[in-house]
Amino acid sequence: MKMKNSLYIIIVGCGRLGSYLANQLSRVGHSVVVIDADEQTFNDLSPDFSGFRVVGDATRIAILKEAKLKQADVFFATTHWDNVNLMVAQIARKLFHVPHVLARVFDPHREEIYKQLGIETICPTSVAAEMFLMAVASGKAGEGKKQ
Amino acid sequence: MKMKNSLYIIIVGCGRLGSYLANQLSRVGHSVVVIDADEQTFNDLSPDFSGFRVVGDATRIAILKEAKLKQADVFFATTHWDNVNLMVAQIARKLFHVPHVLARVFDPHREEIYKQLGIETICPTSVAAEMFLMAVASGKAGEGKKQ
Repeated sequence: MKMKNSLYIIIVGCGRLGSYLANQLSRVGHSVVVIDADEQTFNDLSPDFSGFRVVGDATRIAILKEAKLKQADVFFATTHWDNVNLMVAQIARKLFHVPHVLARVFDPHREEIYKQLGIETICPTSVAAEMFLMAVASGKAGEGKKQ
Repeated sequence: MKMKNSLYIIIVGCGRLGSYLANQLSRVGHSVVVIDADEQTFNDLSPDFSGFRVVGDATRIAILKEAKLKQADVFFATTHWDNVNLMVAQIARKLFHVPHVLARVFDPHREEIYKQLGIETICPTSVAAEMFLMAVASGKAGEGKKQ
């Protein structure tokens, strides 16, 4: 049963991040397709995951077509390889005109380049860094300061 | 020159996260010591990094003592290995009573266990996941929804 605002969401990479997103988004009623070259990774999908699994290399157009990329509202690139994420995100955005494309990028130095290529990114390293710095800046870290 | 609220900060791991934190915190005037077993990683420290570098395995007490762990106000465990981060964070917190200890943990399932062991954690995977989910929930992802 499709909920009213159900989106068609493709997630490339079924690692910790990809499987977590797939489980959560499927649970709230979105149509989710997960693509991963390694079938084993699908073991991290929860038993009530109601989406589809596609085994294959997402940098191959045939695999993306199998996932019905054309119909996607949202496309997440979450593999462990920045280059793969950038490539599949660009295919989704530029060739298949998926309205919302988001890629994980590990190397903070690449964020700017990706932005210039029109790809929205989330960099866990940068986000974690901000959180560590906030812990120091908030003064929390200074409370017990040794003299 | 030490600024008034300068903290003594030890960072274990000089990868992307560790080196970024070291550069930022040194720049604003904190006393920073970075520990890494691989001397090469120190190349990521900026030329104006004014802190100290300690080459060695931070799970060895001798290395932590060399970094003057006793004097630390803040201790960050940022290596790529969850187990190493947990171990050194516990040493800093329980044995050396460093007031503020924060560890990076990649596996979200471990966050809860670490919390029970009294170690504050930052999980880049969880943070990134929340940001992806927010992108969907904010409706931004639905704006261009295909019919």
